Amino acid sequence: MGIAPQEYRDRIEKVRGRMVETGLDALLVTDPCNLYYLIGYNAWSFYMPQCLYITADGELEFLAREMDALGAGDTSWLPDEHVHPYPEALVHRPDSHPYEWIAARLRELGITDLPGPTIGMELDEDFLTPRGYLALASALPECTLVDSHELVNWVRAVKSPAELELMRTAGTVTEHVVTTAIDALTSGRRQCDVVAEIQAAQAAGTPQIGGDYPAIVPLMATGKSAGTPHLTWSDKPLVHGETVVLELCGVHRRYHVPCARTVSLGTPGRDLARMADVVGEGIEAALGAVRPGVTAESVEAAWRTVLDRHGLAKASRIGYSIGIGYPPDWGEHTISLRPGDQTVLAEGMTFHLIVGMWMDGWGYDLSEAIGVTADGVERFTHLPQILTVKEA
Amino acid sequence: MGIAPQEYRDRIEKVRGRMVETGLDALLVTDPCNLYYLIGYNAWSFYMPQCLYITADGELEFLAREMDALGAGDTSWLPDEHVHPYPEALVHRPDSHPYEWIAARLRELGITDLPGPTIGMELDEDFLTPRGYLALASALPECTLVDSHELVNWVRAVKSPAELELMRTAGTVTEHVVTTAIDALTSGRRQCDVVAEIQAAQAAGTPQIGGDYPAIVPLMATGKSAGTPHLTWSDKPLVHGETVVLELCGVHRRYHVPCARTVSLGTPGRDLARMADVVGEGIEAALGAVRPGVTAESVEAAWRTVLDRHGLAKASRIGYSIGIGYPPDWGEHTISLRPGDQTVLAEGMTFHLIVGMWMDGWGYDLSEAIGVTADGVERFTHLPQILTVKEA
Repeated sequence: MGIAPQEYRDRIEKVRGRMVETGLDALLVTDPCNLYYLIGYNAWSFYMPQCLYITADGELEFLAREMDALGAGDTSWLPDEHVHPYPEALVHRPDSHPYEWIAARLRELGITDLPGPTIGMELDEDFLTPRGYLALASALPECTLVDSHELVNWVRAVKSPAELELMRTAGTVTEHVVTTAIDALTSGRRQCDVVAEIQAAQAAGTPQIGGDYPAIVPLMATGKSAGTPHLTWSDKPLVHGETVVLELCGVHRRYHVPCARTVSLGTPGRDLARMADVVGEGIEAALGAVRPGVTAESVEAAWRTVLDRHGLAKASRIGYSIGIGYPPDWGEHTISLRPGDQTVLAEGMTFHLIVGMWMDGWGYDLSEAIGVTADGVERFTHLPQILTVKEA
Repeated sequence: MGIAPQEYRDRIEKVRGRMVETGLDALLVTDPCNLYYLIGYNAWSFYMPQCLYITADGELEFLAREMDALGAGDTSWLPDEHVHPYPEALVHRPDSHPYEWIAARLRELGITDLPGPTIGMELDEDFLTPRGYLALASALPECTLVDSHELVNWVRAVKSPAELELMRTAGTVTEHVVTTAIDALTSGRRQCDVVAEIQAAQAAGTPQIGGDYPAIVPLMATGKSAGTPHLTWSDKPLVHGETVVLELCGVHRRYHVPCARTVSLGTPGRDLARMADVVGEGIEAALGAVRPGVTAESVEAAWRTVLDRHGLAKASRIGYSIGIGYPPDWGEHTISLRPGDQTVLAEGMTFHLIVGMWMDGWGYDLSEAIGVTADGVERFTHLPQILTVKEA
């Protein structure tokens, strides 16, 4: 199922509404997730400067490297006449920068004639570099450049029925990926051979549902490194007795449903088994607290109550908003399930509720990707919330 | 083979030498490639602020998110006492930023007591955001923050014998990956099923050599989209008669050897077959021009001479420096093979020589990953430089 033209128009109107509320005369969108959300553009071109220019009522204009701009219509609905290619000669030069060209074209498009003009930019987004920002600021002195503070990301927080359906579809891929991973984990096998099966499952999906690439490669921390969450694999063989912490994802049309699980290769130690029980109890408490009208922090508080009772603590948040993802992160950078986040949950919000416990030299990770329903919670995957023990 | 402690010391001394030459009192390294190059740190943590602080003669200091800093020693040789974790509560907040904490810690480490101090930062690097840069600038008004202009990347340009050996090893993985891909391409198969085999080959490598994740996922442009270089796959079936343009990579311990090839599913049209001949002649001319002492632009000129003779032109560069890679790009962002780049080639430099011709609705891509030897060129893969025709 694709996204209907009317839904794209609705998304753009919501963005414009927030632009008015926050006093922005124009917005420059650089986050590839937000580009995909607003114009459907989908290519691995984000390592070079590219941006979408949005004003209160003008046409949307996309500015990108020539090599990529000429094929923008392969994925985006934006008409060719609103795609502006900058010359290939500007790629990776010490003496000039694509954002100088982009600034000049924005000037031709009338950016300095806007009232104000105050221009919102995604200043904490990875693919707008300081050099690009400074080049734009220098070339457009009439404009006040301000942080748009994840404006489009916040619009993305509540998913439409079509998006929720994409998430459910991605969840089916996730189940396939995690099941494949657990089946593949065997003492003596090289870690990289296990990951080969995982990545194949991620790309292929199921016979009915094609997979897509996740924003984060398979994370697989083993043995003493299992206390470190963001490690990738090595070519070392898996060792009987060690713990494997997996954080994986199924993706369909850029919608992400992540899942973390822990596998013990052999009988788990008492600490690990006990942790699995506590974390299982904790995640159930957190899931039970999710419904429209409660705050993000109250979900974390339900988890914390369980941890307190067992004399444990976790410094990091227990979840964050998810949906569309591009490398290097599948989080939406808006809502976090943690103390102090008083965002009120609404129907259609979607989260990765992840309760990893990172101890000294070992760890236990467990997660659920969920949607907030009219009266509670919907799980996008249906896998047992347990420490899997593989004796073989 | 790993990197010897002495080689890390040599790398750091070269960086310090360039810092002196360019008047930097300190350098803040944020590019994950450069972190790996200097301290061996290797984790998917670069989506959160992290940086390495280098002064002329002090200890190296690494500042990172708590969740990641505590396990830095799993991959880096840097002693724990020089790793500084910032609190988890600072992740993705509207009201504060990790770089405020980083600035305060750098102040404790004496950054403002340095003579000058002029601080180099990687201002065109993806994982330093404008917001992070502005937070640092605001918190350290005594410091002059300047662009280090890929200082560490330039040190990386000439590879050591150990690095060249890693590239050769990665090349073996690349051959396996490309061979797997060409074998897997069959009319009627879903694109995502072909990519599943490609990604499995990338992760597993060979029985002797473990694979690693590439900085860019498999790029596979098909049919009318074959004129657009940076498209990823879909779940559509491959169609007899269409062209598939592949840009793939083998990776070993973060060292990248990319390879582009084009496959025709059925007898190719005359334009495509003719283009394959011209491009094959052109890449041979370019490869023949590579040796120490010549300029980067002279390699492109050798290619251009062939294109001119056939009445063709290519706007984009025909190659760039390669080595260590992390998403979103495996290029080193230093040397480009194109008019105007007068970098003199030296023994030990390594390039991805890629001569894709992106036409309107079709394309032909071909590449070689190469090293500059004492008297010419070394290829890291040994695959036929042809348009592969698959009749089945």
